[in-house]
Amino acid sequence: MADQETLTFPPSLAAPFTPYLPPPSSSLSPYASSYLLPFVTLTFATSLDSSLSLSPGVRTTLSGPLSKSMTHHLRAHHASILIGAGTAIADDPGLNCRIASSVSPRPIVLDPRARWAVTAESKVIRLAGAGQGLAPFILVSQDVKVPAEREEVLRGVGGRYIRLATADNKFAWRDVLRVIRANGLGSVMVEGGGDVINSLLRAPDNELVRSVIVTIAPTWLGKGGVVVSPERTTDADGQPAPPIRLTNIKWIPLGEDVVVCGEILRP
Amino acid sequence: MADQETLTFPPSLAAPFTPYLPPPSSSLSPYASSYLLPFVTLTFATSLDSSLSLSPGVRTTLSGPLSKSMTHHLRAHHASILIGAGTAIADDPGLNCRIASSVSPRPIVLDPRARWAVTAESKVIRLAGAGQGLAPFILVSQDVKVPAEREEVLRGVGGRYIRLATADNKFAWRDVLRVIRANGLGSVMVEGGGDVINSLLRAPDNELVRSVIVTIAPTWLGKGGVVVSPERTTDADGQPAPPIRLTNIKWIPLGEDVVVCGEILRP
Ligand SMILES: NC(=O)c1ccc[n+]([C@@H]2O[C@H](COP(=O)([O-])OP(=O)(O)OC[C@H]3O[C@@H](n4cnc5c(N)ncnc54)[C@H](OP(=O)(O)O)[C@@H]3O)[C@@H](O)[C@H]2O)c1
Ligand SMILES: NC(=O)c1ccc[n+]([C@@H]2O[C@H](COP(=O)([O-])OP(=O)(O)OC[C@H]3O[C@@H](n4cnc5c(N)ncnc54)[C@H](OP(=O)(O)O)[C@@H]3O)[C@@H](O)[C@H]2O)c1
Repeated sequence: MADQETLTFPPSLAAPFTPYLPPPSSSLSPYASSYLLPFVTLTFATSLDSSLSLSPGVRTTLSGPLSKSMTHHLRAHHASILIGAGTAIADDPGLNCRIASSVSPRPIVLDPRARWAVTAESKVIRLAGAGQGLAPFILVSQDVKVPAEREEVLRGVGGRYIRLATADNKFAWRDVLRVIRANGLGSVMVEGGGDVINSLLRAPDNELVRSVIVTIAPTWLGKGGVVVSPERTTDADGQPAPPIRLTNIKWIPLGEDVVVCGEILRP
Repeated sequence: MADQETLTFPPSLAAPFTPYLPPPSSSLSPYASSYLLPFVTLTFATSLDSSLSLSPGVRTTLSGPLSKSMTHHLRAHHASILIGAGTAIADDPGLNCRIASSVSPRPIVLDPRARWAVTAESKVIRLAGAGQGLAPFILVSQDVKVPAEREEVLRGVGGRYIRLATADNKFAWRDVLRVIRANGLGSVMVEGGGDVINSLLRAPDNELVRSVIVTIAPTWLGKGGVVVSPERTTDADGQPAPPIRLTNIKWIPLGEDVVVCGEILRP
């Protein structure tokens, strides 16, 4: 794995993103220590029609090389990176940071039913073994059986399974974040996929999000993709909740793409 | 209707859009006269999750005041503006240009089954009657019966019904555009709604589009909206056609929104 290309993201391009990143010492920040939750950045790339990929199994290159470097810049500034089991299974992602002399984030995988058959050949395990990334923490439900060989593979490179309560086979986002913070990780970037993003965007869980950084590529993937579009919710009186809106917004053109940075507006 | 507020779009904001607009004399341009088709601009506003509105009946304010002025600037630079029957029925739109000393575009409505019950109270008719806009040309299928009072209302303000062949109750886009050009209209902005946009974006009809100008507002409307996302198509060999992509791209932040201008890339 020694041939992974190094990426750079020049300071001039990086500057506008800084206000949306966790403070460097966020694992020790007053925010983190009083609430015991990490700084949460929701970040992903979509098409104009809000698709993450053509379909769950199909890796889809949406954004350009600068957007890719930007993603690795974000990874350099977060203590952990979170994905769902769907992405782990479909993409076999590396989840490391390829910017020179940066620390890679800790991968966190939401896999309540232990569906992801992680092996020594999984990219994230090979990278961890080669010292080019960290081994994942895989969150599974309290009662699921995990094959012993998977536990071993993970342990061998410094990762592990973490058991967490589920209701209807889902973790509560607050529990997920507490576990992350309890492991000394002061920030997390939530990268995908569709199911994870839509569940975190839905009210009231979106209150847990501190920053949103979305890349939009100038393409329409067409009907049938993995779409970001949260379920609508109703408020306490049964009235439709207002649409989710960003505030403190910055649009940053990046190559042929655009990146929108913002915070979720509290209604 | 004399109280319609006048809008302005300052030249400094307008300049970056100029390369994407039809040439001022486009009704006489060599392009138009050799192909006998108008210059077609596809333009609309969506949420981050590619919704035009919360649902077909619900007028949804997505974009900010500058984007609204931008739309009227585009209207000032097009000879006609096209919408589908769905939008005419749901929104009762004005379709005029409110920039001082500009000419309003000719409204064109695709209404093969004559579903839109246009009356003297329809906004577009009142505006035309008040000299604040043009009366619509409504395209209907060759065999549909149109109530006589509607014909009268239209004629009274300078509009009319135009009959056009249909197949499966749809016009061919090329036929629609030929009719527009044949009426001396050298350019058309296609503004919506979802069904019209998706049908024009689909290959091969998207070859007819010269310019794309899409406003994106920093909000997620959530599942269930009127979504822009074209049906996928297959090429001559039955292979999935590549995603539709823009080229010659410019991202223009405008208030809290962004506008992407481009042309559809020919694969
Ligand atoms: N463009 C991008 O930026 C980007 C980024 C990442 C991924 N992707 C794409 O996204 C696609 C995968 O998306 P996806 O929606 O299929 O999968 P996903 O969101 O990665 O994973 C979904 C699974 O994660 C688990 N999960 C999610 N929320 C949970 C919660 N609150 N508690 C417990 N478990 C939870 C569930 O597992 P169970 O079903 O076992 O309960 C769920 O089925 C892939 O095509 C990938 O390429 C794109
Ligand atoms: N945000 C924006 O920029 C924007 C702009 C415009 C509209 N909108 C919203 O869009 C919504 C309406 O969208 P919609 O999809 O319901 O309706 P629509 O696209 O305005 O109209 C659809 C109808 O137009 C006719 N039509 C479309 N293509 C045709 C073709 N090739 N040949 C013949 N007829 C054709 C069909 O009538 P028949 O069914 O009778 O065949 C079709 O049902 C509204 O909520 C409106 O507010 C938003």
